[in-house]
Amino acid sequence: MSAGRRTALRALLRSRDVDALLVTDLVNVRYLTGFTGSNAALLVHVDGDGRSRLCTDGRYRAQVAAEVPDLEAVIERACAVTLAGLAPGLGVGALGFESDHVTVDAHAALAEHKAALVRAPGLVQRLRMVKDDAELAVLRTACAIADAALAELIDHGGLAPGRTEAEVALDLEYRMRAHGAAGPSFDTIVAAGPHSAVPHHSPTATPLRHGDFVKIDFGALVDGYHSDMTRTVVLGAAADWQRELYALVAAAQAAGRAALTPGADVADVDAAARRVVVDAGRGEQFVHPLGHGVGLQIHEAPLLGATGSGRLAAGMAVTVEPGVYLEGRGGVRIEDTLVVTDGDPEILTRFPKDLLEI
Amino acid sequence: MSAGRRTALRALLRSRDVDALLVTDLVNVRYLTGFTGSNAALLVHVDGDGRSRLCTDGRYRAQVAAEVPDLEAVIERACAVTLAGLAPGLGVGALGFESDHVTVDAHAALAEHKAALVRAPGLVQRLRMVKDDAELAVLRTACAIADAALAELIDHGGLAPGRTEAEVALDLEYRMRAHGAAGPSFDTIVAAGPHSAVPHHSPTATPLRHGDFVKIDFGALVDGYHSDMTRTVVLGAAADWQRELYALVAAAQAAGRAALTPGADVADVDAAARRVVVDAGRGEQFVHPLGHGVGLQIHEAPLLGATGSGRLAAGMAVTVEPGVYLEGRGGVRIEDTLVVTDGDPEILTRFPKDLLEI
Repeated sequence: MSAGRRTALRALLRSRDVDALLVTDLVNVRYLTGFTGSNAALLVHVDGDGRSRLCTDGRYRAQVAAEVPDLEAVIERACAVTLAGLAPGLGVGALGFESDHVTVDAHAALAEHKAALVRAPGLVQRLRMVKDDAELAVLRTACAIADAALAELIDHGGLAPGRTEAEVALDLEYRMRAHGAAGPSFDTIVAAGPHSAVPHHSPTATPLRHGDFVKIDFGALVDGYHSDMTRTVVLGAAADWQRELYALVAAAQAAGRAALTPGADVADVDAAARRVVVDAGRGEQFVHPLGHGVGLQIHEAPLLGATGSGRLAAGMAVTVEPGVYLEGRGGVRIEDTLVVTDGDPEILTRFPKDLLEI
Repeated sequence: MSAGRRTALRALLRSRDVDALLVTDLVNVRYLTGFTGSNAALLVHVDGDGRSRLCTDGRYRAQVAAEVPDLEAVIERACAVTLAGLAPGLGVGALGFESDHVTVDAHAALAEHKAALVRAPGLVQRLRMVKDDAELAVLRTACAIADAALAELIDHGGLAPGRTEAEVALDLEYRMRAHGAAGPSFDTIVAAGPHSAVPHHSPTATPLRHGDFVKIDFGALVDGYHSDMTRTVVLGAAADWQRELYALVAAAQAAGRAALTPGADVADVDAAARRVVVDAGRGEQFVHPLGHGVGLQIHEAPLLGATGSGRLAAGMAVTVEPGVYLEGRGGVRIEDTLVVTDGDPEILTRFPKDLLEI
């Protein structure tokens, strides 16, 4: 599987006229090799894996042999400069590097070696946008775990007045772990009452109260893949303003989902959902992009936003997450993780989206 | 507190002949301002905070006002280029940037603005090495939580044959959260039997067995600060080879702790502990540096290793964590988080280090 990804990368390298790519972003190294250690670099040679090298340090000697039996390993601590030093001996003249990841100082260290360095940003990220079957299977599992944990939390009375935001977050994360997640896919957001109007609120010791909106944004991490879902519920019967706000965001979310088709411009997808909010006079209160790609990172390409560029393709996994925030009162965000297909998008986060009054 | 840190930074900026530093590393932004959002950049002007600016995006408008009332905020998504664009208007000619953090591509985007960019790596990291009283108080709390969680785990029979590595890790993390941690400070390592010989082992579904070494490397995250501790125990009575290995590592750890004095060269501290292992003929099996600084990051300066440079100073928080790993059999690592003082180092991780047979 990883070998096939390296083959796909080689086609991109040829189009950039480089003899090899020095991959230093650990997430990209993992994607291309399956290696999960915390220090590594990879040289992917355009001629094939016989001249490719994976470097890590002594702590991971056994792990790299087990995880990546099909690539020659180099054991050194300073991996990037080590591989750049080996490049000329492997017949590399023009060495592409991830200029969107390599720092100015690291570049200066690489430049001391013989190979000519060529900026080659975003190549692996481009491959990663479209998920293969194995990746989709893991994402489905991660989303199903989040679904199950939230359902269980609610079934067990975990969303009740008197519990604190922090307790709810911990409870939810524990349930995801018990269902097999390696951990949360990011710091869980539990935001009650006025806090729900803060887009990215960190859980506090504030107790949930009757009548509150409770906004929960969370996900499960499984085999390196991240799920991402937001649900907003009301504790008790919803007030009219809460119903109206919820209906508005739900309509925007449905519009965003409907716009998820292969070939769609990512900025247009954002615009389709945003128009619903703007038409309701709430455009100023929808303060973030509509969504983002999700996979080995919680935020990855493509960006579904006004400043995003590119077009959707079948197999891309993205979030659709409009939110409207009324400062001091409360806010609603509704978010799914979905996969673009040739038909309707596949919704991976299947927890219901009707307004839940608990 | 943050204002005082910016004042300390200004002295470094004057010595570098820059009019301002553009801080893009979020950890450094947090250190210098207290801001905890996920998108930000900071311009620290050498003339004072009147000309300094903190940038974040619309999601954090309320948060930045609450967390950083003493700096003028700029609300934009592309913070680094926005602040670079404002720099000339703030009287900045030479603009320092964190060349150990800014990527080659980001640098190219910054260079389109008028200010002259000057490499200024590691300045904030240098300040961060020596912890102030507020930081030490938080680190003590984080370490005490880890101590309490491990003690509770053992008291409740949580380390017993039949439980899996993953269950133990989850149990330990849950107890840290219940004691007030925001989460684990890194992915918890629980490594039983032969797995204990893998320095960085991810917990698996492997059950613990009678006679196993169980190596547990973990920490608590509190207010952004990380604790770090490793203990290795035996399930049941230790075999002779286990006792010998444990005694060797314990002696190396004691030698490392004894070498932690202000003015000591960090490479010499590593050498002091390593010599004990080398003299026992096990040098090849101690495959990593002795330790590292710890604070707002789990790994930060200084590095206590052969390739580290610099000298210790009172107030530095570091780990001392020798390990000896016998592949296929088992390994021992013993790690404390300590603070360098003018007297004996202060051990923050106080869980006992005698060989524990459970």
